[in-house]
Amino acid sequence: MKKQFHVISTGRQSTEQVVAIASQIHPYVDAIHLREKTKTAKELAEMMEELLFHGVPKEKLVVNDRVDVAIVYGVKVQLAFHSLSVRQVKECFPSLSVGCSVHSQDEAKEAEDGGADYCIYGHVFPTASKRGVPPRGIEALAQIVGAVRIPVIAIGGIQPHHVPSVWEAGAAGIAVMSGVFCAEDPLREVKRYRQMF
Amino acid sequence: MKKQFHVISTGRQSTEQVVAIASQIHPYVDAIHLREKTKTAKELAEMMEELLFHGVPKEKLVVNDRVDVAIVYGVKVQLAFHSLSVRQVKECFPSLSVGCSVHSQDEAKEAEDGGADYCIYGHVFPTASKRGVPPRGIEALAQIVGAVRIPVIAIGGIQPHHVPSVWEAGAAGIAVMSGVFCAEDPLREVKRYRQMF
Repeated sequence: MKKQFHVISTGRQSTEQVVAIASQIHPYVDAIHLREKTKTAKELAEMMEELLFHGVPKEKLVVNDRVDVAIVYGVKVQLAFHSLSVRQVKECFPSLSVGCSVHSQDEAKEAEDGGADYCIYGHVFPTASKRGVPPRGIEALAQIVGAVRIPVIAIGGIQPHHVPSVWEAGAAGIAVMSGVFCAEDPLREVKRYRQMF
Repeated sequence: MKKQFHVISTGRQSTEQVVAIASQIHPYVDAIHLREKTKTAKELAEMMEELLFHGVPKEKLVVNDRVDVAIVYGVKVQLAFHSLSVRQVKECFPSLSVGCSVHSQDEAKEAEDGGADYCIYGHVFPTASKRGVPPRGIEALAQIVGAVRIPVIAIGGIQPHHVPSVWEAGAAGIAVMSGVFCAEDPLREVKRYRQMF
């Protein structure tokens, strides 16, 4: 299966910044997650309209947490600990593509049992966004991959030179947040990651 | 049509407090809105489970803003300015009961055109939760009632003695927030309002 490259917005940038970056980089990534915890549904909807207007393909868009916004715009959803459960969402909306963020084997299994289409596991490498929390490491990633049948996307401090070890651990893809969205040149960065695929 | 009595949680009380009050007062009200802006979807789901466990009838529950939570639990939704639009929600979920909070004739008409089942208009009387913003008054309420065909529920500083004037203005019901949820004895308060119906 083709390896996946997900990028995730930081929640600390304006709609204009997110849209400007996403409309540049979308040809080089498989999924663009809108992880905008402080934005209202209306603001998320406005961001979605802008992204679609600027040619970002709907199939690449993933909304964090807000199942309703995902359904209204016909995009995917990514659930987290603070969200409705995968099982609840899949029962109500069986055709919705649902990813789930997990941090342990138990959570990964629960996501799989609930019907998640894939999970994102991390953080694998040290990252500034989880300062003080030790990374779970590449071996834990390999264990998660071995414990579930759904694809496991690795997240957390992944730099381009890490990518071969992530594939070796069996991950189905990588997810990068500030490494792309906060980069001085996001387009150059996604190309650097893409070269490792 | 039978006049409606809606109560609305304040967002400043714990789940335990909201559940304790709601499970006492539900026989005396027609709708209990969960207006919990800072709660996550998971926390709202937990509140919902508790309310149902304590015998609050599903038909009386209304979730603010989170269409997804409303659908998962089979309850109604109340949309506000910061929410998805009524039209978007009704197009995706035609059988969902959708209320909309409005503050002007234009907003009320937009809600009606979008397919809202009713609107809540206010604030009609002076209220501590809108200090510094002049109330819209009973005449403005009557104008809104005249401008749309959907039921208009009045909100904002409504005390029991106001109720006759609210009916005179043609409102289909009243909605009360802190007047019930922050009352020393919420059960006594809902009974005081109910006597005016």
